[in-house]
Amino acid sequence: MTAEIISVGTELLLGGTVNSDAQIVSEKLSELGINVYYHTVVGDNDARLMDAVRIAANRADIIITTGGLGPTYDDMTKETLAKAFGKPLVLYPEEEARVRAWFSGAGFSFTENNLRQAYFPEGSEILANPIGTAPGCAFHSDLGGKRIAVIMLPGPPRECRKMMYEQAAPFLKKLAGMGEIVSRTLFIFGMGESAVEDKLRDYMRSLTNPTLAPYAKPGEVQLRVTAKADTHALAEEMIAPVIERVQSVLGDAVYGVDIGSLENCVLKLLRERGKTLCAAESVTGGLIAKRITDISGCSDVFRGSAVTYSDRAKIELLGVAPETIAEHTAVSEQTVIEMAAGALSKFDADYAIAVTGFAEGEGNTFIAAAERSSGKDTFNFRFDTREIPLGFDRERSRAMAAHMAFDMLRRMILAGG
Amino acid sequence: MTAEIISVGTELLLGGTVNSDAQIVSEKLSELGINVYYHTVVGDNDARLMDAVRIAANRADIIITTGGLGPTYDDMTKETLAKAFGKPLVLYPEEEARVRAWFSGAGFSFTENNLRQAYFPEGSEILANPIGTAPGCAFHSDLGGKRIAVIMLPGPPRECRKMMYEQAAPFLKKLAGMGEIVSRTLFIFGMGESAVEDKLRDYMRSLTNPTLAPYAKPGEVQLRVTAKADTHALAEEMIAPVIERVQSVLGDAVYGVDIGSLENCVLKLLRERGKTLCAAESVTGGLIAKRITDISGCSDVFRGSAVTYSDRAKIELLGVAPETIAEHTAVSEQTVIEMAAGALSKFDADYAIAVTGFAEGEGNTFIAAAERSSGKDTFNFRFDTREIPLGFDRERSRAMAAHMAFDMLRRMILAGG
Repeated sequence: MTAEIISVGTELLLGGTVNSDAQIVSEKLSELGINVYYHTVVGDNDARLMDAVRIAANRADIIITTGGLGPTYDDMTKETLAKAFGKPLVLYPEEEARVRAWFSGAGFSFTENNLRQAYFPEGSEILANPIGTAPGCAFHSDLGGKRIAVIMLPGPPRECRKMMYEQAAPFLKKLAGMGEIVSRTLFIFGMGESAVEDKLRDYMRSLTNPTLAPYAKPGEVQLRVTAKADTHALAEEMIAPVIERVQSVLGDAVYGVDIGSLENCVLKLLRERGKTLCAAESVTGGLIAKRITDISGCSDVFRGSAVTYSDRAKIELLGVAPETIAEHTAVSEQTVIEMAAGALSKFDADYAIAVTGFAEGEGNTFIAAAERSSGKDTFNFRFDTREIPLGFDRERSRAMAAHMAFDMLRRMILAGG
Repeated sequence: MTAEIISVGTELLLGGTVNSDAQIVSEKLSELGINVYYHTVVGDNDARLMDAVRIAANRADIIITTGGLGPTYDDMTKETLAKAFGKPLVLYPEEEARVRAWFSGAGFSFTENNLRQAYFPEGSEILANPIGTAPGCAFHSDLGGKRIAVIMLPGPPRECRKMMYEQAAPFLKKLAGMGEIVSRTLFIFGMGESAVEDKLRDYMRSLTNPTLAPYAKPGEVQLRVTAKADTHALAEEMIAPVIERVQSVLGDAVYGVDIGSLENCVLKLLRERGKTLCAAESVTGGLIAKRITDISGCSDVFRGSAVTYSDRAKIELLGVAPETIAEHTAVSEQTVIEMAAGALSKFDADYAIAVTGFAEGEGNTFIAAAERSSGKDTFNFRFDTREIPLGFDRERSRAMAAHMAFDMLRRMILAGG
């Protein structure tokens, strides 16, 4: 079975927005083992959307549209798709009731154009939208002797993702008689994609179910294991030995399964141990703090970060000795150690990471991870440092320094048990 | 003239990567006034790429491909497009020399597959790639009596952007006999897209050259003015009164022209005045510092930020009085004022912004902007505060709080003259 994604929206053609929806839907389809041969983007234009649908119907078994489901007259996806597959649009009374209730609940006066959100191609299954006003829908067509499944999802990426995962995916699984499909992602840091592939190429090729496939992300590699089986439990059983094998081959470069990111991993390790964290940042300029505080509920572990972008701030906020900076400069192993020690003390935390360096140009970056090694009264700590020569642009340098700091901390926590 | 973008790469269909190239190329085409009716994404597959090209050739005058120009056998864009338009691939000796020189310069041994990067469809103009190894190319076809221009750009977004702007755009301008096209973008904060449109709808509709078009970005609105004229100077002259008109209608909600972001605006204002900035962050968790330090060369203005995610850190690093927190809580106007004052003092800066609040749930967020109002010995400051009730998700709450903090600071600096 092959699927084609048609994203509808003039703003995509004007370059105002990147087509995240196509990525979201494709990623899930790939996990489901459904091939995607084409994406098409088309504007809010009935005739051109109709052409795109005809072309897609000719080359795919499943058409998934994103966008164009709202209440305005620009939103024409349902109308055009209904016309393309010879189905009338019909009013779904329960959806009318829902829309009217929403308006009266929100205290807005109901205008007729909002009724558009209660009309769907005849025979559609409604895909409820729990986080937006426009529902999606799905139907089957046998027009012209070819069986095609059509799924329509809303355009806002959060809504599209939720509905693709929670409603379109079960619809597709049923369609394909698929049973259960389970995926697990291994997160890897400190080893490039080609090194990972070198170590695992033959094994990856030998697998058919589960499959094992690499995804290179900026600065790290992910490996996805996907199993298809009659039951969820069986799929899990099939996945377990693959994960074990990868972990035994790649060792501690694998920092977690389905963990999301290095900062999630670090936060989890610290929370399990009841430990707290702080940071002292120069070159990363708040990026480390931002990445940790992107995680909901981090405040039980994270105490804060001193972003010290001047020598004076390093001295005043972190207690770095002026002599250290004078003698070794602000970008040195000595300074980064004092930054880490100062952060441990000022934030009263158990662990600290510190980074100082140059985001651009020739200079190196120094990273320290520090652990308070004794009680609250006597202040001692142990640390690791690393010097990294960075040849990237500003954004990638900073991202890589943050990655490396989190990874150093992870290894330090694990070494401590 | 209409253009169609074909992005080539199986990784896009697997959902591993979002199609940034299509956005980059579309944005520039929109600025050039060239209509785009479709984007297509197709994998590294000769037959399917060929189909996509045939469909595009039928409905567009210009085909721009992105991706598939590298040296491996997966990279087939040039081969397939040459075949589609009946042109042989020919060796360009100067490109062969360039590739061989690159390999000997880098100390790598030359392998034959790299010669692929020196072959192009006959009659192609080479589009040099100053930041990557694979050049692009462009040619004209009159196959089947229809004149079509074909442009091929590399896949890595940085390379695609640079070559679209610096080489494909001049090629397209020449093609269209366009003269000069100049765009200016007005950046607006504190007014929603619909409010902006209400005030400017009739004016926008009355304009044909220059044109005036809104772009909604998360949390702000941009208006783009685009003029076409025989000379650059003439286009600039045509744009000036439109900018004036928009500024007079929208007032100080317009924070800059081609300024990029609120943090860029603030940094520029401070630099012009020789003033320095620091921050004290709770709920934004380093996002304010991160956004400023994303800007290259910010260190002459920015002193740092204290990211204080615990009460103790607010007291220890910023000197907030324990009684203030005890009496008013850490999320209060009183606390945010003391955070701002503490930051001014600790970082020895001229201006501070401070934010405390809740990223999720019901609570409000308090923002302060503060200006040191006297010399270094006596410490006085004046401040503005704002309380914002936020109903967004974590990411948007934090982004909006940072936006508002920058905007408050901007208004304070401007009010100070």
